[in-house]
Amino acid sequence: MNVTKLTCSSCGETHPAGEIHNLCRVCGLPLLVEYDLEAAAQTLSPESLRGREASMWRYREVLPVEDPANIVSLGEGMTPLLSVQRLGSAIGMKHLYIKDEGQNPTGSFKARGMTAAVSMAKELGVEKLAVPSAGNAAGAMAAYAARAGLPAYIFMPKDTPIANVIECREMGARVTLMDGLITDCGAEVGRRKEAEGWFDVSTLKEPYRIEGKKTLGYELAEQLNWELPDALLYPTGGGTGLIGMWKAFDEMERMGWIDSRRPRIYSVQAEGCAPIVRAFESGAEKAEMFANAHTKASGLRVPKAIGDFIMLDAIRRSHGGAVAVSDEAMLASVREMGRCEGIFAAPEGAACHAALVQLLMDGKIERDERVVIFNTGCGLKYLECFSD
Amino acid sequence: MNVTKLTCSSCGETHPAGEIHNLCRVCGLPLLVEYDLEAAAQTLSPESLRGREASMWRYREVLPVEDPANIVSLGEGMTPLLSVQRLGSAIGMKHLYIKDEGQNPTGSFKARGMTAAVSMAKELGVEKLAVPSAGNAAGAMAAYAARAGLPAYIFMPKDTPIANVIECREMGARVTLMDGLITDCGAEVGRRKEAEGWFDVSTLKEPYRIEGKKTLGYELAEQLNWELPDALLYPTGGGTGLIGMWKAFDEMERMGWIDSRRPRIYSVQAEGCAPIVRAFESGAEKAEMFANAHTKASGLRVPKAIGDFIMLDAIRRSHGGAVAVSDEAMLASVREMGRCEGIFAAPEGAACHAALVQLLMDGKIERDERVVIFNTGCGLKYLECFSD
Ligand SMILES: Cc1ncc(COP(=O)(O)O)c(C=O)c1O
Ligand SMILES: Cc1ncc(COP(=O)(O)O)c(C=O)c1O
Ligand SMILES: [Zn+2]
Ligand SMILES: [Zn+2]
Repeated sequence: MNVTKLTCSSCGETHPAGEIHNLCRVCGLPLLVEYDLEAAAQTLSPESLRGREASMWRYREVLPVEDPANIVSLGEGMTPLLSVQRLGSAIGMKHLYIKDEGQNPTGSFKARGMTAAVSMAKELGVEKLAVPSAGNAAGAMAAYAARAGLPAYIFMPKDTPIANVIECREMGARVTLMDGLITDCGAEVGRRKEAEGWFDVSTLKEPYRIEGKKTLGYELAEQLNWELPDALLYPTGGGTGLIGMWKAFDEMERMGWIDSRRPRIYSVQAEGCAPIVRAFESGAEKAEMFANAHTKASGLRVPKAIGDFIMLDAIRRSHGGAVAVSDEAMLASVREMGRCEGIFAAPEGAACHAALVQLLMDGKIERDERVVIFNTGCGLKYLECFSD
Repeated sequence: MNVTKLTCSSCGETHPAGEIHNLCRVCGLPLLVEYDLEAAAQTLSPESLRGREASMWRYREVLPVEDPANIVSLGEGMTPLLSVQRLGSAIGMKHLYIKDEGQNPTGSFKARGMTAAVSMAKELGVEKLAVPSAGNAAGAMAAYAARAGLPAYIFMPKDTPIANVIECREMGARVTLMDGLITDCGAEVGRRKEAEGWFDVSTLKEPYRIEGKKTLGYELAEQLNWELPDALLYPTGGGTGLIGMWKAFDEMERMGWIDSRRPRIYSVQAEGCAPIVRAFESGAEKAEMFANAHTKASGLRVPKAIGDFIMLDAIRRSHGGAVAVSDEAMLASVREMGRCEGIFAAPEGAACHAALVQLLMDGKIERDERVVIFNTGCGLKYLECFSD
C-alpha cells in the first residue's frame, strides 16, 4: 500500500513495486523494500496501535501487501516479550528479556517471513513456491502455502530434524531431502526453478520475507514502550531477522517514533558454523564459505549467506559483535532456560543465552544493561537433541 | 480480586476464598469459583478490553488472582480464531472457524489452566506441586512451576508421547512414568501427596484450572464480536475447557455482554475411550469407567472424569451432543487441516473435524451454521503418530 520501490542493498539500482522480483537485476544482490513513510505515518502511530489485532499485521502500513484480501495469516507475531528475573539473576542481570518466538504458528519466527512472502506471492499471481531450508523456514512455507492454496516444493538437508520433515508432509508439501547443506538445496532450486515454474522464496533472494521479519523490531519497540534495549542477541543463519530489525529501527526513527540510538546487535552462531563471527573478527566486509559446517542448531547451519555484508555492516554500526558457542553450551542453556523460566527453547535461542554468559565475562555487556534474547523457535521441534 | 467464595458443583456447600482447597469438604466433588460480577463489570467491559494485553489475563477481573504480582505468565491465551474457508468448503460449510490453541506456551491449551492454578498456588503459599497427566497438562505444569520457582512432581502413563516427557524434564520437573492410565497416575498422587507435602493440581480436583480454561469462552465471544457461534466442537478428556466455557457464557450473560442463547456444545471423544459419549447416549447423569481405554489422542485417554456430571448437564442444556471418532479418522483430519489451512493439529483437535463430518451427515449440524472447532494442541507434540 505504501511501497514506493525496491532498492538494491548493494548497487542502489531501483526496481518497481508491484512486480515479481528476486535479486537485483544488475548486480544479483538482495533488494530492500522502500515505503512512503510519511503516508504510512498518517494512519500508523504508537497511539493508533492500541486496540489493533494481536498479530504482526497490526503494522500493515509498513508491510508490503496492497489488498488486505491477499494477506495469508495464521495469527503470527505479537509474541510475548517475557521479563526473565530468575534466569537473569543467575548471571547477575536485572533487566533480561526473552522474546518467545516459539509461540508463533509452526513453532518458529520463520512464520513472520513466510506470511509476508506468501501473501505477496498471492498478490503478484505466483503459482508455485519453492524453498531451500534448514528446517523451520520449510515448515512455515509449507503452512502458509497450504493456507494460500499454493503448491510448495521444499528442499532440506537429509539430517534436518524429523519434526520439520513431518510438519511439511502433513501440510501437503512436496519434500525433497538432499545430501548436503542448505546451500546445496539452494543450488538445486536454482537449477530447476525455471523449467518447473517455481518462484524461489530463498532467504533474501525473495524481498518480502525480510519485511515480515522486521516486525520483530516494531514489536520490540512497542512492547518496551518505544525505549529500545541496550543490546540484543540474535541467532544468525541467513540473517533476515537481524537485517529486518535494523531496517525497522531506521523506519521507526524516520517516522519519529524512536531516536537515533540503537541497541548493540550481537550475532550468535555455532562453533561448528560461524562464518559471520569469523568475518567480524577478521574485519572483512563479506564472509567466506564455512567449510564442514555442523551443529545441532539446524537453523544456524548456514555456511554462506547472501546478505552477509548487510549483517556485518549493521553489527558494526550498532557497535555490537559476533559470538560463537558450542553445541554443549547451547543444550545446557536450553535446560537453564527451562528450569528457571519454563521456556522450552530451540537450541538456536538457547545459543543466545550461552553467548550472553560469554559476553558478560568478556565485559562486552554490563550486568545492569537491558538485554533481549530472541528465542527463535520451540524446543519441541528438536526432540533428537534431548532424547534420553 | 472479585472472588466471593467457592461453591460445590454438586451439593452447593460454600468454601471461603483465599484458602487452599481441593474438592468439596462435604461431598468430595469439584468446587466452582464465584465472583462479584457487578464489581468486576465496573472496570471490565467489552469496550475496556480494547488495548489490553494480548493474553488471557486481559480478563483479570473475572480471574482469581488477588495480587497481580502473583500472576505466573508465559503469554498464554488470545490465540487466533481462524476463519477456515478452504477446509469448510470441502465439506460444504461457509462459516467454519478453528481456535488454534497450539500457539499457546507449551503448545497446548493446558497452559490456560496451569497459569491460573500455579498463580493461585503461589498466592496461597503452596510449596510443591503434583499432577497426574495424559501429557500436555504435565508439560504446562512443568513450565509454569518452573516460571514460579516451585518444584513439580509429574506422573504420566509410560506410553505418553515422548515430547511430553522431554519437555517436562527440560523444565526441571520430577517425572515418574507409570504402567496404566491417567486414573492410575491420579491414584498414585492421591496416595502419596500427604506424606510428601504435595498440592494436587489434578483436573477439577483443583478449582482454578477451570478458571483459566474458561477464558476460551471469553475470547471466543470477544473474537466473534459478542455473537457466539451456533455450535462448537470440543475434544473432551477431563472436560475443564467445556465446563469452563459453559461457566464463562453464564458469567458474560450476567454481566450483560451476551444474551441467553448458547452454542450447542458437542463433546468429541475417541472410539477407544468414549465414556461421555456412552453416558450421553444412554441418558445417564454420570459416566461409567471406560474399560481398556486406548487412543493415539493421548489427551482423550481419560476413562473416568470427576466432572462427568457437569459436562453431561452442559451438553444437554446446550442441546448439543457427543460423538466418538476413530483414530484413523483423526489422523486423516490432521492431514486435511494441514493440506487445506496450514494448521498442524493435534489428533485431539483433528478429532473435532472428523466429528463435524459425521454431525453434518447425521443432519445434527447444518452447513450454513457458524461452527467453531477447538484445536487444543500442536501436532508437533505427537510425532509418533506421523512417523513415516
Ligand atoms: C530457530 C531458528 N533460529 C535462527 C535461525 C536463523 O535465522 P536467520 O536466517 O534469520 O538468520 C533459523 C533459521 O533457520 C531458525 O530456524
Ligand atoms: C490436546 C488435548 N486436547 C484435549 C484434551 C482434553 O482436555 P480436557 O481435559 O479439558 O477435556 C487434552 C487433555 O490432556 C489435550 O491434551
Ligand atoms: Zn544491485
Ligand atoms: Zn459438595
